[in-house]
Amino acid sequence: MRRLPLPPAQPLSANQLNFSGGPGVLPECVLAQAQQAIMALPDTGLSVLGMSHRSAWFEALLEEAEHNVRELLRVPAHFKVLFLQGGSSLQFSMIPMNLAPANRAPPAYVQSGYWSGRSVLEARCVRPIELAWDGSAQQYSRLPDWSELALAADLPYTHFVSNETVEGLQWPVSSAPAGQTSIVDMSSDLFARPIDVSAYAMIYAHAQKNLGPAGVTLCLLDERLLEEIPAGLPPMLDYRTHVLHRSNYNTPPVFGIYVLTLVTRWLRDTVGGVAAMQRLNHAKAARIYGLLDGFSAQLNSPVEPRHRSMMNACFSFRQPGLDQRFLAAAAAAGLTGLAGHRSRGGLRVSMYNALSIAAVETLADFLSDFVQTQA
Amino acid sequence: MRRLPLPPAQPLSANQLNFSGGPGVLPECVLAQAQQAIMALPDTGLSVLGMSHRSAWFEALLEEAEHNVRELLRVPAHFKVLFLQGGSSLQFSMIPMNLAPANRAPPAYVQSGYWSGRSVLEARCVRPIELAWDGSAQQYSRLPDWSELALAADLPYTHFVSNETVEGLQWPVSSAPAGQTSIVDMSSDLFARPIDVSAYAMIYAHAQKNLGPAGVTLCLLDERLLEEIPAGLPPMLDYRTHVLHRSNYNTPPVFGIYVLTLVTRWLRDTVGGVAAMQRLNHAKAARIYGLLDGFSAQLNSPVEPRHRSMMNACFSFRQPGLDQRFLAAAAAAGLTGLAGHRSRGGLRVSMYNALSIAAVETLADFLSDFVQTQA
Repeated sequence: MRRLPLPPAQPLSANQLNFSGGPGVLPECVLAQAQQAIMALPDTGLSVLGMSHRSAWFEALLEEAEHNVRELLRVPAHFKVLFLQGGSSLQFSMIPMNLAPANRAPPAYVQSGYWSGRSVLEARCVRPIELAWDGSAQQYSRLPDWSELALAADLPYTHFVSNETVEGLQWPVSSAPAGQTSIVDMSSDLFARPIDVSAYAMIYAHAQKNLGPAGVTLCLLDERLLEEIPAGLPPMLDYRTHVLHRSNYNTPPVFGIYVLTLVTRWLRDTVGGVAAMQRLNHAKAARIYGLLDGFSAQLNSPVEPRHRSMMNACFSFRQPGLDQRFLAAAAAAGLTGLAGHRSRGGLRVSMYNALSIAAVETLADFLSDFVQTQA
Repeated sequence: MRRLPLPPAQPLSANQLNFSGGPGVLPECVLAQAQQAIMALPDTGLSVLGMSHRSAWFEALLEEAEHNVRELLRVPAHFKVLFLQGGSSLQFSMIPMNLAPANRAPPAYVQSGYWSGRSVLEARCVRPIELAWDGSAQQYSRLPDWSELALAADLPYTHFVSNETVEGLQWPVSSAPAGQTSIVDMSSDLFARPIDVSAYAMIYAHAQKNLGPAGVTLCLLDERLLEEIPAGLPPMLDYRTHVLHRSNYNTPPVFGIYVLTLVTRWLRDTVGGVAAMQRLNHAKAARIYGLLDGFSAQLNSPVEPRHRSMMNACFSFRQPGLDQRFLAAAAAAGLTGLAGHRSRGGLRVSMYNALSIAAVETLADFLSDFVQTQA
């Protein structure tokens, strides 16, 4: 098995201290290989940016990307693996176009935060939908239990977002309503923990949190869903087209798929798989949430502990004005990307897969010092 | 494909000798800057792949990209400039969704080759369309004159493709039917020659020929078109959304837009603009077509000379079997990407903006030698 070079200890620390909500940081060893490939791919001697998507090299790359995804997530054989464009936002309309036939009941949507709200907004322009739960009245401070949702038996699907990056909410991994056709947007936590793919009908994720650069969207799709897709969709918006052409119908984002493949190699060969990744992610999140709990007199973290996100910890100083002072001080110390989402303000620490434990330690020490001296 | 990453012997020249139909080669200086930015952007010290699309850096980048596009193409003020995802193939359905209201006559489409055929295929799934011309019976060996098209006066738009990469056909630059609302796919020749943007209602182009890596699509849109867009489209598929959010509605392909911006700087500052670019492109095409004409006893180039593409020269050896022998000999000499499109076979020399005259000279000499010794 090919071992990837270990990340260098120090010189690239600027990159490691980016806590942005997304696009997220990528592993140093992936960046080093991507950098080399910009000028000349080791396999071909040509720039990855000029490689034909019809070349044998790219066909082999697509094959490896799919293989690695299947291996890492133990994707069952009856699932198709697709690499598409347009982010999750295009999936928000493609899903009801393809999978909510007009002769079926409306699909159910769980609105548990900003991003599931966006999925509802787009879907409603395609088909009527049923809002199975709406957490907005509670300012999205918790997720529902499945028993709270009144789900009919014959829904075409139930849609939810596994991790709400804006509010910092994450469903427990065992979540998927039994007996339902579940479609889940895992844009911000796919590959961050083991999942049972077969519990879902479709899982999708844009790349720019845990998988690669913005511009690629990974879809895992139970092939039985394909049978119900209505005729007459534009081929580009029909999942069957991309299944038939194995993600190579029109020119795919070649560079993004290349980097995604490098990330899957890193995750398998260096990290040791998604279970090992989860242990690292748990350790990072425990460090940050431990601080938030320890300084609860100074810091407000509104999410119910059982629904706290391992990926995004959202909080704010109780004393007005301190959020901005913290952001300025952190930026001066080289700690970037810590502002909360523009729709909520406050602070947010995003800890995607490639963010190192050392980076979290540095931030935690800085936050701890700041609280004790300023707050 | 999992060979060990050995540094290639001549990475720069190898890159210059890629004649692929797309994605095309990029300028060396752009590759060098992109390579640096993968690890750390000069402006921010962070990897371009981890830069937030909500950062001041990215807002400034979007602004510069738009400014450079406007300057290079002299885009009139009443045109919007958008950077989208999904390639031209997504535009093929977005255009009729947005710009062919159900209460208007069907839009007219000119089918002049493989790619305009694809645009017809996608559009027909959205709205009825009128096929204003179909060159398939003549194996797409020429383009029509506007006088051959029976265009009604009240069409929502007339759609055509300015350069057919598969067949090697290109419309004369002055082409756009007077008095019509013209929408043109310039994916393979935008920025290759000066154009009068105001003669069109919309111009669009995916990046991967003359502008950057696959995954970005540039749209220039007369703002008067926005008024007729029907209500109720999913926001992600509605041009008004992307105008309102200045191409930053959902996460854009940050890296692709960065490289596109570098290419516009190169085109302006190093090449000297699109008129200078056209002179270089003319010189490259003249060298290749001169050879094809000189060896017309051995080589068949089916396109009418007045419609020959400056970007893609398509031809084949008259003697059976020689195409394959030529491809093998060329590959052995480091000349790649010369096979014709999989739908047609034969040979194709693609000469996008960043392909150097030296590369064309090398290929021309090789072809000339091959013809004289083999054919």
